[in-house]
Amino acid sequence: MTPSSTLTAVDPRTGEPGESRPATPIAAIDSLAAAAAAAFADPALRDVARRAHALRDVAARLRADGERLRARFQAESGLPAGRAAGELERTSGQLEAFADVIEAGDQLEAIIDRADPQAVPIPRPDLRRMLVPIGPVAVFGASNFPFAFGVAGGDVAAALAAGCPVLVKGHPSQPGVNALVAEHVAAGIASAGLPSATFALVQGGSAELGAALVQAEPVRAVAFTGSTAGGRALFDVAARRPLPIPVYAEMGSVNPIVVTAGAIAARGDAIAASLVTAVTGAAGQLCTKPGVVLVPAGAEGDAWCADVAERLAASEPLVMLNERMRDALATQLEQLARQGGVRADGAAPRPRGPGFRLSAAAYQVAASQLARREELREERFGPFVLLARYGSDEELLATIASFDGQLATGLHADAATERELAARVADALAGRCGRLVFDGFPTGVAVSWAMQHGGPYPATTAPGETSVGMTATRRFLRPVCWQDAPQALLPPPLRDANPAGIWRRVDGRLTRDGI
Amino acid sequence: MTPSSTLTAVDPRTGEPGESRPATPIAAIDSLAAAAAAAFADPALRDVARRAHALRDVAARLRADGERLRARFQAESGLPAGRAAGELERTSGQLEAFADVIEAGDQLEAIIDRADPQAVPIPRPDLRRMLVPIGPVAVFGASNFPFAFGVAGGDVAAALAAGCPVLVKGHPSQPGVNALVAEHVAAGIASAGLPSATFALVQGGSAELGAALVQAEPVRAVAFTGSTAGGRALFDVAARRPLPIPVYAEMGSVNPIVVTAGAIAARGDAIAASLVTAVTGAAGQLCTKPGVVLVPAGAEGDAWCADVAERLAASEPLVMLNERMRDALATQLEQLARQGGVRADGAAPRPRGPGFRLSAAAYQVAASQLARREELREERFGPFVLLARYGSDEELLATIASFDGQLATGLHADAATERELAARVADALAGRCGRLVFDGFPTGVAVSWAMQHGGPYPATTAPGETSVGMTATRRFLRPVCWQDAPQALLPPPLRDANPAGIWRRVDGRLTRDGI
Repeated sequence: MTPSSTLTAVDPRTGEPGESRPATPIAAIDSLAAAAAAAFADPALRDVARRAHALRDVAARLRADGERLRARFQAESGLPAGRAAGELERTSGQLEAFADVIEAGDQLEAIIDRADPQAVPIPRPDLRRMLVPIGPVAVFGASNFPFAFGVAGGDVAAALAAGCPVLVKGHPSQPGVNALVAEHVAAGIASAGLPSATFALVQGGSAELGAALVQAEPVRAVAFTGSTAGGRALFDVAARRPLPIPVYAEMGSVNPIVVTAGAIAARGDAIAASLVTAVTGAAGQLCTKPGVVLVPAGAEGDAWCADVAERLAASEPLVMLNERMRDALATQLEQLARQGGVRADGAAPRPRGPGFRLSAAAYQVAASQLARREELREERFGPFVLLARYGSDEELLATIASFDGQLATGLHADAATERELAARVADALAGRCGRLVFDGFPTGVAVSWAMQHGGPYPATTAPGETSVGMTATRRFLRPVCWQDAPQALLPPPLRDANPAGIWRRVDGRLTRDGI
Repeated sequence: MTPSSTLTAVDPRTGEPGESRPATPIAAIDSLAAAAAAAFADPALRDVARRAHALRDVAARLRADGERLRARFQAESGLPAGRAAGELERTSGQLEAFADVIEAGDQLEAIIDRADPQAVPIPRPDLRRMLVPIGPVAVFGASNFPFAFGVAGGDVAAALAAGCPVLVKGHPSQPGVNALVAEHVAAGIASAGLPSATFALVQGGSAELGAALVQAEPVRAVAFTGSTAGGRALFDVAARRPLPIPVYAEMGSVNPIVVTAGAIAARGDAIAASLVTAVTGAAGQLCTKPGVVLVPAGAEGDAWCADVAERLAASEPLVMLNERMRDALATQLEQLARQGGVRADGAAPRPRGPGFRLSAAAYQVAASQLARREELREERFGPFVLLARYGSDEELLATIASFDGQLATGLHADAATERELAARVADALAGRCGRLVFDGFPTGVAVSWAMQHGGPYPATTAPGETSVGMTATRRFLRPVCWQDAPQALLPPPLRDANPAGIWRRVDGRLTRDGI
């Protein structure tokens, strides 16, 4: 198949074609990557003030152009106006937050061990270590967050903050959003006096183009948000390079949620209502959507499940991001409804128009079946939840144990009466996820220091890192230690005087003081 | 080839056979890994006091058994008595240092963001994040540090400190040392009340055994110290797993050192003497041995190189770790001496007896040749250094740019007269290594907070991490975030009260205060 030379958006609300943008030829990737490597060698990129200026300037430009950006966002994603506004604010906010981080030097993990001639078994030299940028980074944007995981999204912001040039492949469903946002990023980069090749947009939908980006010799790390198959494919390409590079792929997740009998008794109605919001918001197209909820067997659980299913069935058909995703979910649900042991209560939702719509639904299955059959535990991206019914605490714990790595999990329990069970379940859930939510659902990912958006494989390919929050820069940094360096040859954050008041570990103790 | 069922040590000083130990059957790996997974699930392993006790107890046992351990170390490595004593002290010291780290909670990177109902674009829940152990870890010991990178070495200490069970494959050249040390580790684990499967020794020399360890389903990370070929092979096996896992392989390095004209004029004699010590110490069998030194062309450089070569030629033949390594280096040097442009000044060193000995040597080559020909830049493990002569600053910088990732580099310059050149060279060196040493050589790796023992590929497979120093635990940890958790269900380090005074980032600020 020859990759198309033009990408044309389709409005998911109507199915009508929208903006067209040229695709990036595969042959152009090597020169873009070479230019990024040249930008990386430019001392300007190591100037914190310039990088912070660029991040804040891009944020301001996005806000100033909000009306046009939100309209294009809606036309290319079908997501509602409130989401467009919230996501644009989040995107600008996280660019600014990363500017704050690097101005404080918080990403440097600066450490100084002064010389110790008395150290055993050998005298210790003067050692000073901090994190430095890793090199050009390739980012793959996601369709379900056209702004926040897109061309000026969290991965791009984190990489630029770290001091790495970025080649970002915007999602091919949203060529117009990608192009508009890229103009603002380029303008922000220019206004800060950074080399223009610090940032480049790549557009295209072919697997070959993605592979070319990962294979480009100067690229030193990859960030990806998308499907398990897509992420694993890029991981495999990166691992086979002569010079292998890390791939930080945030992939699929089922995000199992436990609801106990005590929780249903105490506040079942509220939990059902917020589950329905979590499953239908953004048409369920969130990596943190609860895909499986573990519910007790028995009459109270039956009634609760029926309530959830009715609420979902009563909602209007939801606009999905594109035709492929809508049809893929419809096919998955049709097949799932025919599986032995699965209770669908009626026909599977059928694709509807105008545009790319599908109704929300909940099916039921026995938890013991879910634990035994891997195919029941796979991700179903969109407005769907599988309610898995457990007959005992042991069945519940065995079912949790059957899950691979997850981005998030959740626990709704009654603190007063289920203390011991809650502790056991929380422990089991924390052992296989990046984030454990109590009395809530994991949709809505705050951008803050403590956020962890990651998890063991297959949630991600790098369980030690996060793609959201202030520690997300760590993926694009590596430590360097200067031994017995003259003050003038040390990077400023490691010199004795510490006029910026950077937090440093000096002789084992954290301090903002100079030496 | 059928893997041998017995490993027999050979004394490198004499060539005489020593202790025999049974090899671990490949068929045993899966049950060892399953037992490690069961140990990981035991709450005892999350008890910091127990882990710290175990680490200190192992250290004390190693010290108490020093005489026997040092004798076995020398008999199986051929390394001198001073090295045996120093390395044993380092090994005990780093076990104790990791105990201090985890008692202080310094490895947790604890972060708390309290709820903020006013946050935009969405209210922020209470988020609390810390690092938790990743799961069972497979460690591959190195022959050149039978203690410090062996069965109770830095990788094992870091993994146990992190809370991960360890399966350690001791180096097959040293079966007796491995078995003795393993007894002490097992005793320390037992005395702390940790599950016995927290630690297991694997002995064997076959690639199949190593691959089986990496493929074992419960293993979640791999640490390796050794050759580029060995490390890359394990990396490839790990990347092809259905559930891929990180491989922290510390592999080969040439560790290029720059000596300027000013440095030779100011203190050429001292630099030559310390280079000779760095090349001959431990028979040059250090990952941080200076393998290439960049020296100015011209008469002063000629005289300096002649001095280095003479000092090396005058030294006694050195005992190498085993026959294979000695013969491999002898073959490499013979081939190198025949390469066009390489000046060997006499015959290549020949294997000598008793045992496995080789003389030290220095060859010369033009730096421009080194920059052009990749084969000249490969690692030569043992008592050898290649002196590469540069005719100009530009040739020097172009030669530095030709190097791939390095563990360490070094710069000897004259601070008074070569300020600008030193800055340019330091910048180029720091851009491709984990540690940059000024006016010294990188041999002698201090175990401290600021140490960085790692570097871009092919120095390691994970440029973001270190295998030495207090931050080495990071490889075996992953972040988990608890959202809106009741106090009782939080891990103690994340509860409001902070009686242990752990450093935590609370609402963006580092503090040891409680909430």
